[in-house]
Amino acid sequence: MSRFFKFILSVTLLILFSLVSQLTYSQSISIADFGVKPDTYENITPRIQKIIDEAIARHSTELVFPKGRYDFWPDGAIRAKYFVSNTSTEEEDSTKTKTIGMLFKKAKNLTIDGNGSLFIFHGKMTTIVLDQCENLKLQNIHIDFERPTMSEMRYAKVSEQGVDLEIHPDAKYSISNGQLIWHGEGWKTSHFHGVEFDTTLKTMRYSDWKTFNGSRATQISPNLVHFDTPSGFKPKQGNILTVRDIIRDQVGLLILQSKNITLEDVGMHYMHGLGIVSQYTENITMHRVTCAPREETKRIIASSADFMHFSGCRGQITIEDCKFSGAHDDPVNVHGTNLRMIEKMDNNRLKLRFMHGQSYGFNAFFAGDTVAFVHASSMIRFEKGIVKAVERISDRNVIITFQNVVPTGLEANDCVENMTWTPQVLIKNNYFTRTNTRGILLTTPRKAVIENNIFYRTGMSAILIEADAEGWYESGPVRDVTIRNNQFIDCAYQGGPGNAVIGINPSNKIADFKKPVHSNIRIENNVFTTFDFPVLYAKSTEGLVFSGNTIIRSNTLPPQSENKKMFYFNGCSRVEISNTKMSGDVLGRNINIENMPKSNLKVTGSKKLAIE
Amino acid sequence: MSRFFKFILSVTLLILFSLVSQLTYSQSISIADFGVKPDTYENITPRIQKIIDEAIARHSTELVFPKGRYDFWPDGAIRAKYFVSNTSTEEEDSTKTKTIGMLFKKAKNLTIDGNGSLFIFHGKMTTIVLDQCENLKLQNIHIDFERPTMSEMRYAKVSEQGVDLEIHPDAKYSISNGQLIWHGEGWKTSHFHGVEFDTTLKTMRYSDWKTFNGSRATQISPNLVHFDTPSGFKPKQGNILTVRDIIRDQVGLLILQSKNITLEDVGMHYMHGLGIVSQYTENITMHRVTCAPREETKRIIASSADFMHFSGCRGQITIEDCKFSGAHDDPVNVHGTNLRMIEKMDNNRLKLRFMHGQSYGFNAFFAGDTVAFVHASSMIRFEKGIVKAVERISDRNVIITFQNVVPTGLEANDCVENMTWTPQVLIKNNYFTRTNTRGILLTTPRKAVIENNIFYRTGMSAILIEADAEGWYESGPVRDVTIRNNQFIDCAYQGGPGNAVIGINPSNKIADFKKPVHSNIRIENNVFTTFDFPVLYAKSTEGLVFSGNTIIRSNTLPPQSENKKMFYFNGCSRVEISNTKMSGDVLGRNINIENMPKSNLKVTGSKKLAIE
Repeated sequence: MSRFFKFILSVTLLILFSLVSQLTYSQSISIADFGVKPDTYENITPRIQKIIDEAIARHSTELVFPKGRYDFWPDGAIRAKYFVSNTSTEEEDSTKTKTIGMLFKKAKNLTIDGNGSLFIFHGKMTTIVLDQCENLKLQNIHIDFERPTMSEMRYAKVSEQGVDLEIHPDAKYSISNGQLIWHGEGWKTSHFHGVEFDTTLKTMRYSDWKTFNGSRATQISPNLVHFDTPSGFKPKQGNILTVRDIIRDQVGLLILQSKNITLEDVGMHYMHGLGIVSQYTENITMHRVTCAPREETKRIIASSADFMHFSGCRGQITIEDCKFSGAHDDPVNVHGTNLRMIEKMDNNRLKLRFMHGQSYGFNAFFAGDTVAFVHASSMIRFEKGIVKAVERISDRNVIITFQNVVPTGLEANDCVENMTWTPQVLIKNNYFTRTNTRGILLTTPRKAVIENNIFYRTGMSAILIEADAEGWYESGPVRDVTIRNNQFIDCAYQGGPGNAVIGINPSNKIADFKKPVHSNIRIENNVFTTFDFPVLYAKSTEGLVFSGNTIIRSNTLPPQSENKKMFYFNGCSRVEISNTKMSGDVLGRNINIENMPKSNLKVTGSKKLAIE
Repeated sequence: MSRFFKFILSVTLLILFSLVSQLTYSQSISIADFGVKPDTYENITPRIQKIIDEAIARHSTELVFPKGRYDFWPDGAIRAKYFVSNTSTEEEDSTKTKTIGMLFKKAKNLTIDGNGSLFIFHGKMTTIVLDQCENLKLQNIHIDFERPTMSEMRYAKVSEQGVDLEIHPDAKYSISNGQLIWHGEGWKTSHFHGVEFDTTLKTMRYSDWKTFNGSRATQISPNLVHFDTPSGFKPKQGNILTVRDIIRDQVGLLILQSKNITLEDVGMHYMHGLGIVSQYTENITMHRVTCAPREETKRIIASSADFMHFSGCRGQITIEDCKFSGAHDDPVNVHGTNLRMIEKMDNNRLKLRFMHGQSYGFNAFFAGDTVAFVHASSMIRFEKGIVKAVERISDRNVIITFQNVVPTGLEANDCVENMTWTPQVLIKNNYFTRTNTRGILLTTPRKAVIENNIFYRTGMSAILIEADAEGWYESGPVRDVTIRNNQFIDCAYQGGPGNAVIGINPSNKIADFKKPVHSNIRIENNVFTTFDFPVLYAKSTEGLVFSGNTIIRSNTLPPQSENKKMFYFNGCSRVEISNTKMSGDVLGRNINIENMPKSNLKVTGSKKLAIE
């Protein structure tokens, strides 16, 4: 064979090989090819997991579900131990084992397309886990539970003889010895937590199952139960009570140590335990994600707790064109986790401890990460360090070796904050409603923009910026936050801080305007429609701009806060209020300042605001 | 040490050892000792199975469940392949794999005491399997399903605009594109079978889901659905339609190749596929077993098919003080299985074949068994043989080697009946109602007594004695049956044979009184309350006594049978009717005989009966 032919042959083979590789490595897999059909109502969990594993092994680029209903049961599901931020329960070790509907482990360059399918989950399950994935997209998928762990019921009749509860058809119950028991597909509710929805005011407030739990129950007809409640007990007829178990033994969807993850046109219609938890993941896009009940179910709650929970993520978090309605906690929560120094092992070695009972055991530091050393009392990041090595010595404790010696100024109880794993955040064009807590809870040292959103009757502050090295240990000071062009409608009717629509409230004990925690927060061109006095509460913030905003008086709810101040500043500096427009009989029109000189407040172009 | 002391020491050690052995081997195990609690609504299947295995390994004599509710899910259940009589489906091999709630394999001398507990099963499961057990007793247990595979619904409103169905709260459904889909915990109904309960007449008749399946469904409110049925469709308002899938992919409870099995104070409140199936088991006692829905569920059906099905059992079967209400097929069915000869391999070797699509694959012959060779056409057992060896060559076919040469008279299609595996039967003090088919279906060559029972509106004959070597191939001629002191009330309104309250109807093609199939059947001192003509239909029976019975006219239903004969005898011999008392406007008072001379009928001491 001549050299030339050898060359031609080689080139041909190379082309063929490359084509075959392409065919092998960029194919689309449909579950239909594996004989899984929609609308069978059968458990597909184990079969789908095999197909997923196959898709990952084949390096498929697309996994397709023909449109229809698919049912997932715990039977045959992967059980795996995951330490998930804000969920663990010290007493119940079993809560760490997740029952996983679909596990994507180390999947790369894969789009999962549901074509508008409905995935119905049963029992207590974590619907999807993305573990160490990269370039993964979930699209056109609706996720719901046959029997949510939330039990919903209406006060159908309230009288001297007691209360008749009309129970939502999806809420299974038994009555045993006159006691109503909430149960579902393999569980019952034991640690009760109640939230009540006012069907006329559209508000959500903490409520209680205790009275019903202590009263004799008698079934009148299927899903209508009479309770011999005490004569003084008079809930508002027509309101809806929603009751769940507080134990967060699963989460809705878990994204863990992954990169470039997108959810688009996804409906999360019920999530048990906690919602979509993203943990130590880089770049997450949530686009047209609906966290709300499916209308046809006539339910009002879609999650036991937060809808989207980001813990220790980095890169860019984008939440755009999403809808959030019906959570027992914050729709969006972005934070890190501070670990407390408990022992200085060496000049460059510290033993650190996860402090909160619900957040521990996960990987919070990686070699090369930049950290901040934080004074717990002042929340001040006083020094930086770089992680050399991480040694996990227990679920609670880690030993970190730093590249250099740790600062000598470290005090007892000081914390270490992982600065590498903090994200840029864009939250845009979303709709927030029907939550008893906040709309957005956010702390990141990087750029954060919250714009063009509507916040309709969130129970507490529509936006809350905390930062704490105590309590939840969810760090840390923000340095660049823009809140613009949002509409806030009748928010903060059940809490604040100070019942303010926007709250900035770090946990530092002494508010000293010379030692700010947060800095550079701009609140611009928003519309605040509110029935009450407080609009903004801020503590220990430097460089706070409130500019071009409109405040409109609403009369849908009575004013109720003890805080009668439109603006409340505590230990802040370089505060500017400019061009505030007011419409209607706006309450207060006043500014409270404390722990700071007046010189740190500049009011321009606004109607007269009394400084108190 | 003196010899005496050595002796004393030995004796003492022996006594101690024996005591310890006793403690070890006769103990009672409570599931509470293993941390399993009632009323958790959690899935206990895998944990209970471990305890069962432990109890069997320890030779425990008692396994105790503290009173309460226990939930069993397919998750973690043992899956095992069992060929069960009258259930297999050729097309669907998967139907042979049973999902087992509790498997007792080779358990001996064990009582399982539920203390009145309620075991709730989920999905499609075989609740309990007793495989090769001996001296095993189940007591004080109630078994039910959360979502039975039977869907029950009431014709709430029947009008020109269609039919509104009020769906039982336990019957889950979806409406998709105007089509109602019945589904449950991991399944949906595809092969529909309907039975309708007339709520005023208390009768059950075959009905149809087809009309609803073809009509547009619209939900009015939860569990109330309107169907645009054709204008001519006018079911009786208030009646209850019950719909199931005909595939028998599980059974209620399976007793297999066991000995001395007792069920006492057991409630089987729903069973899917087929009921309690006893197969090749010796000595079974059913005492105070209630096969009926739990009253509080307001359901009317408790089984997809037969309640108690005995196939190829031997020794004594006793069914006493039981209640049977709400089956889609016969409450009690006792039979064997004839295999057809398909090839003579040798003088003493035959290849045999299971002929019915639902019954095959199980062990039907054991070495040492006595068999009868049966002419298929005449049903006559013309010769005996003894099994030497059994070779299973496929699910369908076995090769039997006999101790002696097989009879030369064997004709094509002749059958082999296993005579060793036939039982004595006592069915006493039971209550039978709400079935669209028979009360008791029975064929055994040994002594059978049916006494002191009440049969209230069974759809077909209250008691049917068949025998066939065609169709179901459920052998064989009876030789000693006593039916006495029973009450039959308004039975056989939807079928017979000949709509007779008692039917004797072997499958032989030519009824020749000289070649009887059955013999020695005595029907004595019973009370027949009936709205119709037929009381007794008998074919090819020798030695048939109908003595001391009372027939009372009832007017609850209109007479409807085309058979206008009180007694119908075809090819019978030595028939005696004596001392028949009649009360009220009893219909017919006549006797039809065919294929037999009058001399074979003797009527004495009865009111005038016309022989036709």
